[in-house]
Amino acid sequence: MNFIKADPFLISALNEDITDCDITTDSIVDALAMGEAHLFAKEDGIICGLEVFERVYKLVDSKMEITFYKKDGDFVKNKEEIALVKGPVRAILTGERTALNYLQRMSGIATKTNAIVKLLDGSKTHLLDTRKTTPNMRLFEKYAVRIGGGVNHRYNLSDGIMIKDNHIDAAGSIAKAIKMSRDMFGYTHKVEVECENLAEVKEAVENKADIIMLDNMTKEMMIEAIKLIDSRAVTECSGNMDYDKINLIKEIGVDYISSGAITHSAKILDISLKHLTVTK
Amino acid sequence: MNFIKADPFLISALNEDITDCDITTDSIVDALAMGEAHLFAKEDGIICGLEVFERVYKLVDSKMEITFYKKDGDFVKNKEEIALVKGPVRAILTGERTALNYLQRMSGIATKTNAIVKLLDGSKTHLLDTRKTTPNMRLFEKYAVRIGGGVNHRYNLSDGIMIKDNHIDAAGSIAKAIKMSRDMFGYTHKVEVECENLAEVKEAVENKADIIMLDNMTKEMMIEAIKLIDSRAVTECSGNMDYDKINLIKEIGVDYISSGAITHSAKILDISLKHLTVTK
Amino acid sequence: MNFIKADPFLISALNEDITDCDITTDSIVDALAMGEAHLFAKEDGIICGLEVFERVYKLVDSKMEITFYKKDGDFVKNKEEIALVKGPVRAILTGERTALNYLQRMSGIATKTNAIVKLLDGSKTHLLDTRKTTPNMRLFEKYAVRIGGGVNHRYNLSDGIMIKDNHIDAAGSIAKAIKMSRDMFGYTHKVEVECENLAEVKEAVENKADIIMLDNMTKEMMIEAIKLIDSRAVTECSGNMDYDKINLIKEIGVDYISSGAITHSAKILDISLKHLTVTK
Amino acid sequence: MNFIKADPFLISALNEDITDCDITTDSIVDALAMGEAHLFAKEDGIICGLEVFERVYKLVDSKMEITFYKKDGDFVKNKEEIALVKGPVRAILTGERTALNYLQRMSGIATKTNAIVKLLDGSKTHLLDTRKTTPNMRLFEKYAVRIGGGVNHRYNLSDGIMIKDNHIDAAGSIAKAIKMSRDMFGYTHKVEVECENLAEVKEAVENKADIIMLDNMTKEMMIEAIKLIDSRAVTECSGNMDYDKINLIKEIGVDYISSGAITHSAKILDISLKHLTVTK
Amino acid sequence: MNFIKADPFLISALNEDITDCDITTDSIVDALAMGEAHLFAKEDGIICGLEVFERVYKLVDSKMEITFYKKDGDFVKNKEEIALVKGPVRAILTGERTALNYLQRMSGIATKTNAIVKLLDGSKTHLLDTRKTTPNMRLFEKYAVRIGGGVNHRYNLSDGIMIKDNHIDAAGSIAKAIKMSRDMFGYTHKVEVECENLAEVKEAVENKADIIMLDNMTKEMMIEAIKLIDSRAVTECSGNMDYDKINLIKEIGVDYISSGAITHSAKILDISLKHLTVTK
Amino acid sequence: MNFIKADPFLISALNEDITDCDITTDSIVDALAMGEAHLFAKEDGIICGLEVFERVYKLVDSKMEITFYKKDGDFVKNKEEIALVKGPVRAILTGERTALNYLQRMSGIATKTNAIVKLLDGSKTHLLDTRKTTPNMRLFEKYAVRIGGGVNHRYNLSDGIMIKDNHIDAAGSIAKAIKMSRDMFGYTHKVEVECENLAEVKEAVENKADIIMLDNMTKEMMIEAIKLIDSRAVTECSGNMDYDKINLIKEIGVDYISSGAITHSAKILDISLKHLTVTK
Repeated sequence: MNFIKADPFLISALNEDITDCDITTDSIVDALAMGEAHLFAKEDGIICGLEVFERVYKLVDSKMEITFYKKDGDFVKNKEEIALVKGPVRAILTGERTALNYLQRMSGIATKTNAIVKLLDGSKTHLLDTRKTTPNMRLFEKYAVRIGGGVNHRYNLSDGIMIKDNHIDAAGSIAKAIKMSRDMFGYTHKVEVECENLAEVKEAVENKADIIMLDNMTKEMMIEAIKLIDSRAVTECSGNMDYDKINLIKEIGVDYISSGAITHSAKILDISLKHLTVTK
Repeated sequence: MNFIKADPFLISALNEDITDCDITTDSIVDALAMGEAHLFAKEDGIICGLEVFERVYKLVDSKMEITFYKKDGDFVKNKEEIALVKGPVRAILTGERTALNYLQRMSGIATKTNAIVKLLDGSKTHLLDTRKTTPNMRLFEKYAVRIGGGVNHRYNLSDGIMIKDNHIDAAGSIAKAIKMSRDMFGYTHKVEVECENLAEVKEAVENKADIIMLDNMTKEMMIEAIKLIDSRAVTECSGNMDYDKINLIKEIGVDYISSGAITHSAKILDISLKHLTVTK
Repeated sequence: MNFIKADPFLISALNEDITDCDITTDSIVDALAMGEAHLFAKEDGIICGLEVFERVYKLVDSKMEITFYKKDGDFVKNKEEIALVKGPVRAILTGERTALNYLQRMSGIATKTNAIVKLLDGSKTHLLDTRKTTPNMRLFEKYAVRIGGGVNHRYNLSDGIMIKDNHIDAAGSIAKAIKMSRDMFGYTHKVEVECENLAEVKEAVENKADIIMLDNMTKEMMIEAIKLIDSRAVTECSGNMDYDKINLIKEIGVDYISSGAITHSAKILDISLKHLTVTK
Repeated sequence: MNFIKADPFLISALNEDITDCDITTDSIVDALAMGEAHLFAKEDGIICGLEVFERVYKLVDSKMEITFYKKDGDFVKNKEEIALVKGPVRAILTGERTALNYLQRMSGIATKTNAIVKLLDGSKTHLLDTRKTTPNMRLFEKYAVRIGGGVNHRYNLSDGIMIKDNHIDAAGSIAKAIKMSRDMFGYTHKVEVECENLAEVKEAVENKADIIMLDNMTKEMMIEAIKLIDSRAVTECSGNMDYDKINLIKEIGVDYISSGAITHSAKILDISLKHLTVTK
Repeated sequence: MNFIKADPFLISALNEDITDCDITTDSIVDALAMGEAHLFAKEDGIICGLEVFERVYKLVDSKMEITFYKKDGDFVKNKEEIALVKGPVRAILTGERTALNYLQRMSGIATKTNAIVKLLDGSKTHLLDTRKTTPNMRLFEKYAVRIGGGVNHRYNLSDGIMIKDNHIDAAGSIAKAIKMSRDMFGYTHKVEVECENLAEVKEAVENKADIIMLDNMTKEMMIEAIKLIDSRAVTECSGNMDYDKINLIKEIGVDYISSGAITHSAKILDISLKHLTVTK
Repeated sequence: MNFIKADPFLISALNEDITDCDITTDSIVDALAMGEAHLFAKEDGIICGLEVFERVYKLVDSKMEITFYKKDGDFVKNKEEIALVKGPVRAILTGERTALNYLQRMSGIATKTNAIVKLLDGSKTHLLDTRKTTPNMRLFEKYAVRIGGGVNHRYNLSDGIMIKDNHIDAAGSIAKAIKMSRDMFGYTHKVEVECENLAEVKEAVENKADIIMLDNMTKEMMIEAIKLIDSRAVTECSGNMDYDKINLIKEIGVDYISSGAITHSAKILDISLKHLTVTK
């Protein structure tokens, strides 16, 4: 994780949780007290975000030391110990919620992603994420998708060309839209066209789109589209893709399936910091 | 919504989605083209975040104009139109994802909160949120809880005293912990004590805690605790509270139930911007 | 002191004092010269802000080392040595003014607060601060109040409910205003009502306000109000409270007196960095 | 006032006063209520900071409108009306404290500065400020000094050369220190030397210092120094300069007297926002 | 130009040019004086950055109004008038240097880019920029390249895969490096391989690199490489490409030539703001 | 270099070059791989910016270690080794471009400045820079001018008084403009007047301007002006000053020549990081 990029988000999140000080801890716990606590999984899943968890704590107090028994991507079982957290007791308590909020959410996404990736095992199809991420969490959520075994679609509006119906209307035709975007920004970026029917698929493939997205099509139409494309472009299925729908189409031979649900609707993985002891 | 507080998050979220420019839109759509699009619900739920949706668009381009047919807290049905979005076509397309990411998540939380609030109808019990919010989304998620009919627990570590086992250990006893925190920061802040058994409940209530949290207790123990407290303190039940568990205890007469799930594990409400037309 | 919160202010203050470089020091003092200087009190008072003084210097140059002979809250006498400041000579000179500006102001506030706290010795009355702090200095000024022996009133508009006449007008009555604010944000926050006459006091106490502020009343009226409240709410006297006025009412049995003067009109404590020697 | 420079401070100050929302006002006052209130002086003095007062309110809500009956530098009498404040009632209440904190402090400094400037009336001596300003308030405090009739000394370490004993030690002699700083940064910046005795004054004037500061000297030594300098350099007296000390030396013919007290130890001017009425 | 992205740079640049105020202008020009001035080219070239020029002025004072007689990409001749600048005289003077510094540099880059693009007229070769831009100017410099007729290479490290010798060493072979990067980030990003000899070119093309960069090769080797690639990949020539070297190879049939010199070593286009008149 | 001032620019520049991660390096190079690379000059010149080069790398990863064989201001020859760069291989690759972009530009300016300074050798004339710097690069470019042997003119609008024709018009006369600016901001700042003819020069010198700029005059007029001024003020020649023009007037006895070209139109010095080896 690149902390030049991550730190502003982590600092902002810590600021969200503290206006001036931790009024409970600061009035009760001595500023010099040192201690340790244990990080446990409270359900089964894929752990993700350990480096972020540590960084949050380091930002609270550089004297914090975390010893990890797991690494990102490991499967953890309920009640399994993940890490030992040592340092000033005030910092352990003050940083706990923010550190856990990141870790739980990232692990939840990695866990959901991984479950779908396993569903696709044996097929040729890969799982993609989308830009339907939680605001100010994309860096962390796209990372969690990778850890879960998924593949990242474009990071944002600037690093991938995705031509939708509105762009086609504005350009006049798929051919023109592809040409305009390829001429201006196509040197390092591939051109993807979102298609809603076979006519559009045909036009896109004939105008050499690099990627063709089959958007909200029926299974039958998707099968036909893939046949029509005939490996002349990469294929992607999209449209409310979650477990059931993905299960339904996993054998049709599409290259990629993109799912917003893995980021926008994953539940967290329950993780808890427990057994804090004051060591001096 | 206070935009002195909200704007830095919204601007950061827009920056997340654009490195330099929208390479698809900027190469295809004319900079001067004006247009309009329609915002529709794609499933039933409570709409929340309309002011944020509008603000995101205004930050992209001050010429954007949104006409709302709904207001925050309204129930919307699948396919119902929520708003008309007018302005520069480039801005409509460039701001769409960020504006929707906020609106969908806030509406998802309001919808889930509201469902539980309805479950509690007829009882004396209110639904509270927690600090288990998504990093950098607390301002928006706590607002969504209010819109959904829930009540906000403390905003962060600075505006509520919550004494947990670690604080009790550090202080030496519940009595001492209550006194220390009340003396230093108790002038405008109430003192809440997290209790795991009846002995702790007794100690807390006798030392005049304002709020007593019954944490991870069985239904039977909660009932006993509430009897023991006998209205001498406000009562709160906590610990993995979601639909089923809340349904189980809704009749025991607790004042409040707090649930992390309404913020950390709500799925989004599906909402879509459609039918963009270029008007000139 | 929580430096996640303090650092942005300290960095901003350092930036205020340097546009590009310290043109005197940088043209005369060698970049590698190391040295030390001594920090002395130049008048009697309570020292406060030593951690901030050190942090400012560390931000200027991480090689700075400060050895303290005093700690926050200690009484210092004129000419007494407070600390030894060691490090790069350029940093000692460049950071001096900003570090001292914090230390002098915080010590001035702690000193003034402490003088009033001593005045209240033997009475049951505590001294409160207000939100009448210097802009961008609240974190430091409220800390100085605590060090001086005072108690903090609400930190800002978000962590305490304070109902004033305008709120009462808007709500329609004290009863309604209390109910509205308690319902929405009263779970962890106490409700305070600002009263200007006995009728208001009566209404507030009957509607179970947690705190009743007696604002700009005569001594006689305050005495009557306290009698009327009869321990059913915490009492606070307010209104241009400085030495003389506080002296006048210190025996009337109010719980708290709040004073803006301790933050907005304290003079600094004179402190000086002297005898810089170049050690290599 | 240059708001590119001022706005970050004002926004930061507003953030200091609001964590998420104004919990009293937002629960009681309707979001659409419009109203007006009146700004009154509560003691005599020089008003300063009206543009800042207005800007704070505009940042809270762009719909705020302030009508001023006074301008910066005007003398105001106790109970005199200064301005009419109109706009959303929520904004009037939420912005009040921050807007007043600036206005009161700036007016306090202008008032104190002006009192000393009047003391110097009839002499040839001007009053200077110093860098002993409140952290993050320099822009506003130096402006207030000008409004009060004072003259600004250097703004910060980058826009004036001030050679102190430590610089002289590091350079080897006054002559060398003057030469080094003038060679590197003397093109647009004057060179000032801080002198503690007549030997230093002599050396400084002979090496063509532009300004000679007579630091912490007795009145007699100052008189002698001014005679020695004989108009070959600008002269400045410094060292705990407040009313009494300035009164003592106002006739000795020094060009400038610099006083830290006008910024670091001015009390505020009491100003109040009253009679809020809801207009619709 | 997307001002969510541009504004932080423009504001930072204005801050660089003003510590507290414009001491010349603010002491001489009345705050209410309005006026106008004329923007002239002082040499021939391609004008670029007019929207930025205007935005800088709007940030200084929202009352500024600019009327343009030219648009970005237009050829301007020495002494030709480009725009009329109207508004507060203080703002015209205070914003002038920063506004011009952007406009002159952007126009200089557009002019140099355009000269090379003209050199390539008639060939099949396009001109690319690089990441050798001035720090914190990339947004503006890459835009200027497009206005000058050039094509943008990747914006930064995140939106294009460029495999260099170090990456190949780390991976073990070109084949492995291509596979690793394509698997992880290749969904929307093309893969470019930097080659220094024909063996590398062969390996890259056989492993289906999308783009092959011929780095620092002789003209003869480039010709051979292009023949070897035989349209199986896009080709790019690189290595100290400026007028002369580009002229030498413009006929060899490479698809793209990338030049750092167009951004890092372009001289400015001389432009001047003149004839300021005070209109009231 | 003062990093309180420099760091925000360096961090912003690094952010410009990374949206989320280095997609090539992060997919190919192991996160734990350590290595080293060598920094070489690729042409002759003055090296400048080594401390900035190191700081950029430290900001990318605090484990980076740079060993320098040269120091700022040294002359380096083509192919000479400048430094050894050690640390995590990912950091070496990810920070390379940003670190080099600063170093190359600063060295280019130092080299160009130095060439002109050498041209002036033997004359009494010094070389000044201007405010015609690249936006957000002034701190670095003015430093490079000093390293190249030049002298800095005012840093920005706040630390030097420069009266131009517009100011004279606004004031009514040179005499009035000098008086107004000197009264308000002249305590530590010198007053410079920009003159376009001998009448203006005469007026400026008679009103005791500290510095007189001879702007865009012919060589003959400059000679006459210098004679007229007769050492009563410092003299400065200005107006498109580059090698040839400076060569022409270097013997006329002006005190200073100011040149915008040394900052706005210097080409970079070519420097390269090579021979990266993975050490473990």
